[in-house]
Amino acid sequence: MSQLLRQHIEKITPLTDSEFTYILSHFTPKKYKKHQFLVQEDAPVPNDFFVTKGLLKASYTNLNDGKEHILQFAWEDWWITDYQAYFNETASSLTIDCIEDVEVLCLSLHNREKICAELHKIEHFFRRKSNAGYVALQRRILSLLNSSAEERYHQLLVTYPQLFQRVPKTLIAAYLGVSRETLSRFSK
Amino acid sequence: MSQLLRQHIEKITPLTDSEFTYILSHFTPKKYKKHQFLVQEDAPVPNDFFVTKGLLKASYTNLNDGKEHILQFAWEDWWITDYQAYFNETASSLTIDCIEDVEVLCLSLHNREKICAELHKIEHFFRRKSNAGYVALQRRILSLLNSSAEERYHQLLVTYPQLFQRVPKTLIAAYLGVSRETLSRFSK
Repeated sequence: MSQLLRQHIEKITPLTDSEFTYILSHFTPKKYKKHQFLVQEDAPVPNDFFVTKGLLKASYTNLNDGKEHILQFAWEDWWITDYQAYFNETASSLTIDCIEDVEVLCLSLHNREKICAELHKIEHFFRRKSNAGYVALQRRILSLLNSSAEERYHQLLVTYPQLFQRVPKTLIAAYLGVSRETLSRFSK
Repeated sequence: MSQLLRQHIEKITPLTDSEFTYILSHFTPKKYKKHQFLVQEDAPVPNDFFVTKGLLKASYTNLNDGKEHILQFAWEDWWITDYQAYFNETASSLTIDCIEDVEVLCLSLHNREKICAELHKIEHFFRRKSNAGYVALQRRILSLLNSSAEERYHQLLVTYPQLFQRVPKTLIAAYLGVSRETLSRFSK
């Protein structure tokens, strides 16, 4: 599973074997079962998670109506956490739990800052990842402002066809911000 | 106006005089009049802009109904560009124009990558800025999914009261994704 992390970093910057061994020593591998929580609401968020196996979601539950809004899915080769809580060392406003059995490599904020300070190329890697994440979120905001739910459904289907194989329709509806019934109409 | 940039960077990392002089030499100052465009749709986006004076907006116009959706406002001490087009060197899907007379410091992608590669502390600065931007966009997505337009109006009023002094109500409506008439009801 560590090879996936190495390939992931090397898409942006090459590493020597000893550099990668050193970087990897700052991650902790963990396994979770389907339905288990990695992050619970109101709890501290010490780790960012690089997914090496399985599928997770980050969601927010509205306290007034109990409705779940999904902010993000993540699977192999993706990162997920409550970044607001992680970077600012505050309590989580999100819940992160497993849609499938999951294996992750955990990176604490302390270790992230440590390897970024020690290895310029790792600081470069995380800057490039963060820039790409920022662009993806800007696109999602534009799509929320500018596209209908049905258009967003079709964009999602074209961009991430595998999501539709792996994620229950109820959760895709919660990601798009529509009811399960509305979603059924789109997929006809 | 360059002092604003120095203070802005030094909130994250201290600089020597010679470091700052070197960094600043990679920026080009420009002035624009109210209503002038910094970025036009379908054009290349060679620069990111650090605002030293004035107020701008980044927006997307729906080709079908001609409706303008505002993605971002920016004023003194903020950055603005079409980041998707800038980082990927593609044509802009956004328009960026001036709501007031504006002064900016322009940073080309080439120069950004150059000073990041040459100065580890600048790579650190931009990583930290990008992380903060990512968190802000996640919050905006959650608020679009989870809050009513009226709740978003009040969040905006509390977070950026000065915006309501400087920006016409029509543009605030375009940012919130509501009509001018709906906005008037919120502000009663």
